[in-house]
Amino acid sequence: MNILLVHAHPEPQSLNGSLKDFSVKRLEKAGHVVQVSDLYAMHWKATLDVDDSTDRRADTRFDPSLDSRRAFESGTQSQDIAREQDKLRWADALILQFPLWWFSMPAILKGWVERVYAYGFAYGVGEHSDSHWGDRYGEGTLAGKRAMLIVTAGGWESHYGPRGINGPIDDILFPIQHGILYYPGFDVLPPFVVYRTSRMDEARFSGICDALGQRLDDLWKTTPIPFRPQNAGAYDIPKLTLRPDIAPDRSGFAAHIA
Amino acid sequence: MNILLVHAHPEPQSLNGSLKDFSVKRLEKAGHVVQVSDLYAMHWKATLDVDDSTDRRADTRFDPSLDSRRAFESGTQSQDIAREQDKLRWADALILQFPLWWFSMPAILKGWVERVYAYGFAYGVGEHSDSHWGDRYGEGTLAGKRAMLIVTAGGWESHYGPRGINGPIDDILFPIQHGILYYPGFDVLPPFVVYRTSRMDEARFSGICDALGQRLDDLWKTTPIPFRPQNAGAYDIPKLTLRPDIAPDRSGFAAHIA
Repeated sequence: MNILLVHAHPEPQSLNGSLKDFSVKRLEKAGHVVQVSDLYAMHWKATLDVDDSTDRRADTRFDPSLDSRRAFESGTQSQDIAREQDKLRWADALILQFPLWWFSMPAILKGWVERVYAYGFAYGVGEHSDSHWGDRYGEGTLAGKRAMLIVTAGGWESHYGPRGINGPIDDILFPIQHGILYYPGFDVLPPFVVYRTSRMDEARFSGICDALGQRLDDLWKTTPIPFRPQNAGAYDIPKLTLRPDIAPDRSGFAAHIA
Repeated sequence: MNILLVHAHPEPQSLNGSLKDFSVKRLEKAGHVVQVSDLYAMHWKATLDVDDSTDRRADTRFDPSLDSRRAFESGTQSQDIAREQDKLRWADALILQFPLWWFSMPAILKGWVERVYAYGFAYGVGEHSDSHWGDRYGEGTLAGKRAMLIVTAGGWESHYGPRGINGPIDDILFPIQHGILYYPGFDVLPPFVVYRTSRMDEARFSGICDALGQRLDDLWKTTPIPFRPQNAGAYDIPKLTLRPDIAPDRSGFAAHIA
């Protein structure tokens, strides 16, 4: 299988760098083909702006969505964007690997999402009407592919537990797993999270690699998070709220998991 | 009062640009002093990296936290970072204004947080031990100041409701309001959110300005979101989970609101 690993850490000798190297080796050893987008090493441009297409008229108002659509449709996207889209088309699975900074992904990775996820590629796909709100949340360009997060966090696991002060890790990651990965069609596997990264020794690192290796070995066997598809009957359209008979007493992020 | 407005949109003639201009005028008319950090206009460097301090030795391993601490303590931070920290010290209130892109803030603003929130400034403040886990979540450098989000979203309000497909807006914003604003000490006011931004005419824009103007007039009267302070007894330390007798049947983000 083809795997794209997008890696967002500035230091190759970091824990994240080591986990990236380990993952690539493990996947290649299993016979997969791996491409790595090492965003810091690539000097990835983090900021979505007027320079993201090659044919923009300077005298017009810049609309991030409409400019993205025009550039995507006319083949005038900046080359770094088109290259990452090609990698996504090529990949059978996507791994996003990053340290949790301020309870989300690093800016450089957020900027990868914003720029690569063009209108017509990752959103604005399919019919948009009051009866069909686009091919998204389970459908879309990237449907049929798998995705998984590998995340490191400085805090303790209990800080990210159901009653932990930072909020539950599944809720912190929901905007990424549901809003960024499931949205354009990926099947999303449970995340691999390493806590308390400042307390690391060789024994612990070795145990983490064993667990991560198992997850990578099982990439095509693991059951995805059962997010509810938008267009299979669970939601009223165009309100896009859960139908009254679906999990009637639930609300919040967890209600969107079957 | 002194107000810092951090604005993250690439087009001055956008809805966000107009709301920024309106806010500045309204606040100045009320006698406040306003500074605007217009991140796109400033060409803000979004990516946290080795160039964020002026005295780094190229032959050492880059540690984002420890390098940030060293540079903050020794006065060798990049000047753009130090300037924003000065603005935060000067401000009585902070407004972050941005379009919701992929269910979070734009990368350029995330990078403002990552770079300006230095170790020793926004985290790593106060005693860190097994009985006191830092001055944070209600305490810290920015305690006594107020903060508020002004956010625009393309989707409908129902899509962000309790059972809306995107998840409730309060939960989507929790990592920002609690994790980025409350963490270093801000009192966080309820957000001002504009939905369905593609359907805007003069009448609707005028109504939005009226509502936003009222919120700005009430900046010092509005009751902050009652997030639970970390060090006032609600949490077991160092586990940092809610004590069993605090909201015993609740979990998730909402449990951290009294």
